[in-house]
Amino acid sequence: MTNDTLVAELRSVLGADAVLTDADVTAGYSRDQMPLAPSGTPLAVVLPTDVDGVREAVRACAAAAVPIVPRGAGSGICGGANAVEGCVVLVTTKLDRIIEIDPDNRIAVVQPGVVNLDLREAAAKHGLFYPPDPSSYDWCTIGGNLATNAGGLCCVKYGVTTDSVLGLEVVLADGSLLRTGRRTVKGVAGYDLTKLFVGSEGTLGVITQATVALRPLPQAPATLVAAFDSAAAAGAAVSGIVREGLVPSLLEIMDATTVKAVEAYLGTELGTGSGSGALLLCQSDAGGTLAKRELAAIEQVCTDVGAEFVHSTDDVAEGNLLMKARRVVHYALEQRGACMTDDVCVPRTRIAELIEGCERISAQVGLTIAVCGHAGDGNMHPTVVYDATATGEVERARRGFDEILELGLSLGGTVTGEHGIGRFKQDWLAREIGPVGLDVHRRIKQALDPGNLFNPGSMFSPA
Amino acid sequence: MTNDTLVAELRSVLGADAVLTDADVTAGYSRDQMPLAPSGTPLAVVLPTDVDGVREAVRACAAAAVPIVPRGAGSGICGGANAVEGCVVLVTTKLDRIIEIDPDNRIAVVQPGVVNLDLREAAAKHGLFYPPDPSSYDWCTIGGNLATNAGGLCCVKYGVTTDSVLGLEVVLADGSLLRTGRRTVKGVAGYDLTKLFVGSEGTLGVITQATVALRPLPQAPATLVAAFDSAAAAGAAVSGIVREGLVPSLLEIMDATTVKAVEAYLGTELGTGSGSGALLLCQSDAGGTLAKRELAAIEQVCTDVGAEFVHSTDDVAEGNLLMKARRVVHYALEQRGACMTDDVCVPRTRIAELIEGCERISAQVGLTIAVCGHAGDGNMHPTVVYDATATGEVERARRGFDEILELGLSLGGTVTGEHGIGRFKQDWLAREIGPVGLDVHRRIKQALDPGNLFNPGSMFSPA
Repeated sequence: MTNDTLVAELRSVLGADAVLTDADVTAGYSRDQMPLAPSGTPLAVVLPTDVDGVREAVRACAAAAVPIVPRGAGSGICGGANAVEGCVVLVTTKLDRIIEIDPDNRIAVVQPGVVNLDLREAAAKHGLFYPPDPSSYDWCTIGGNLATNAGGLCCVKYGVTTDSVLGLEVVLADGSLLRTGRRTVKGVAGYDLTKLFVGSEGTLGVITQATVALRPLPQAPATLVAAFDSAAAAGAAVSGIVREGLVPSLLEIMDATTVKAVEAYLGTELGTGSGSGALLLCQSDAGGTLAKRELAAIEQVCTDVGAEFVHSTDDVAEGNLLMKARRVVHYALEQRGACMTDDVCVPRTRIAELIEGCERISAQVGLTIAVCGHAGDGNMHPTVVYDATATGEVERARRGFDEILELGLSLGGTVTGEHGIGRFKQDWLAREIGPVGLDVHRRIKQALDPGNLFNPGSMFSPA
Repeated sequence: MTNDTLVAELRSVLGADAVLTDADVTAGYSRDQMPLAPSGTPLAVVLPTDVDGVREAVRACAAAAVPIVPRGAGSGICGGANAVEGCVVLVTTKLDRIIEIDPDNRIAVVQPGVVNLDLREAAAKHGLFYPPDPSSYDWCTIGGNLATNAGGLCCVKYGVTTDSVLGLEVVLADGSLLRTGRRTVKGVAGYDLTKLFVGSEGTLGVITQATVALRPLPQAPATLVAAFDSAAAAGAAVSGIVREGLVPSLLEIMDATTVKAVEAYLGTELGTGSGSGALLLCQSDAGGTLAKRELAAIEQVCTDVGAEFVHSTDDVAEGNLLMKARRVVHYALEQRGACMTDDVCVPRTRIAELIEGCERISAQVGLTIAVCGHAGDGNMHPTVVYDATATGEVERARRGFDEILELGLSLGGTVTGEHGIGRFKQDWLAREIGPVGLDVHRRIKQALDPGNLFNPGSMFSPA
């Protein structure tokens, strides 16, 4: 089949409007938010509106041996949805229906194109809560969240995406439709294929539907901010919180570099008077006196390790104001240059070592590195700030980025806590999982996608 | 290689004491607790004491093309650890070390032979909690819990085994050692192989080590018991509890037949005066006033749907006394005959329909069927009571068991919520997951165990 024949076939099965080939238009679908991951020019971009369209598109591409790169909104930051040269990009954003919310069984059935925020709002109308909350929750889609097993700020208490998924519908490489999992809370019939597809980054199939578990809507959060004179002290506070058996609904850390950037951006002091400190932000959604008690216990831990300043509030508006410091980090850093945001996860006791290591790496590569992240689960996001137009800076930024991954592994961590591998960290995946792990990945890929149709070369190379 | 050569080889690598061939001795390792699942006579039973022993045994069996059936303590109830004729049973109970408990990161690293209760007690010494609590927790091993993705009474609040597992070490069919997952709370590097192996019932490899997440030890439980005049009313109470957003740490149901059997066994009244009712048992481990508030809210729901009797206590000894009614169910039913305990999981709103359906099926097959189970997650355990010596009763019991599975599926449920498929429900797995699901299972099995070495014919047939 020639490329022209394939495009004609796709137009015939999906309708002409659902098949884009104009290079100016398809360019907008050819990469995600990671500037440095490679991408190619797609042959076509298809936007099917139902599962049958997805199946027909997959069959047509399989017959033509043209690879498919599935994608959602493109909010990813590992190049996992980047086009390969001559591929068909299969966009799932038009499968955007919330099919069902069943409050009595606390589940929802959704298509992959539903925006995370829309599901959250629909669930909230029933007093229910869909926990996974990646930073891009107001525009990322459930399909992308499933493909990357997305995390967010809630994970310290509520886990990542896979912890909320009960079942999937997936179009396989031969166009057949696989249903995994179930609608019940528990179920152990057969292999856990649901959790195999979640986080598989579009390399095993196209997810066309998901059944997710909802939780009771938590109480409005009470918020605590604590400032420390060093990353070590803030790290000790995190360890103390874990050791005391406290489970806040949010526990974020910002290092001195991040704090300074945010202070400059917001034009305000964040309370780290010494200028060399670190900030913890913490919330409890337990409500009322219980939240007060949780935050009081956390305040005690912070004071015990020598916090310079601690302040708690159960006023939601004031809490939002405090949280603003965390939410603007990315914008604050973008004022300083291009940003390459990493995603390492280390044991919670090693956070201070990671931050201190990043200070050393920053000095080595001569670039600003600001660290913030989800302290409650050790998932840190060091950002290397660089000037893309200055000679050698991109290379130095990438070197710094790699040094951070090296450091993360040496601290007993992983090279990705929530962003994924994509087309940017393949070498690091191979290194983390080793030759046996890589071989098992290849065997599973070969078993489910023998023609290497889906997202070829992303995550790992097939051989 | 002849069988004699293989046995000699196993003795040479494991030591003579670790290889059993006396039929009287090996018989004790040839089946689990499900009387009706088929089993064969093993060629040998091996009890390696370390991972190298497991690898050597696997390599030797692979070279001789003799199948391996991995097993732990044998507490399973689906025949998943039953020997096939001429196999080597590989027992993991001698790999019984708790390698590490890291309270600061709330994780433990354990070998598969550790008894569930021993891990719970070791964690408790650090103020920590390993939630999965199958009924056999005082003798089942973590390896078996991992293989079956075991549940228990805690699941309504804390999930099943897979929800507590961060990483595994697995010996594959070629003797190579796979390490999956990580020691960090989060991690999305590559496919979620950890959760693929959990619940794979020994068909993909031998788990030789697990890294598990621990939680803060909960408070001593407060307990509530509520009696209803019908299963429908008790089911309505369960739905009401879910709808109100309440998450008790335990929520069990017993139908009228179960209540009667337990009353006779204990020689006491359980409070269902009408004699045709159902009992709910509920606990909160939130502690203090919060537990009081949770149970008060549950009491309100029970009263609203017309409970005949509700009683709460925060006295632990009294709570244990109330819980005794649930704990003795199996012994109470065994007084009446042989027991075939099923394990269907239905949406939480369909529990009453399942119980009522079991009453119909009981009348059809002319055998007592008593239903109890984990109401909080819809995981019901109907037990068919029969006389194994009476002509045709085994067949009628099996027919009743199958009718219950049929009913469970028709209510939107699954054929196993926590026991597994094993050698007893293969046909039902095929039916639940359909031809595409079965084909994917076979492809994954073929990819990881091309020689069909591990537990052949259990869960599903390879072709």
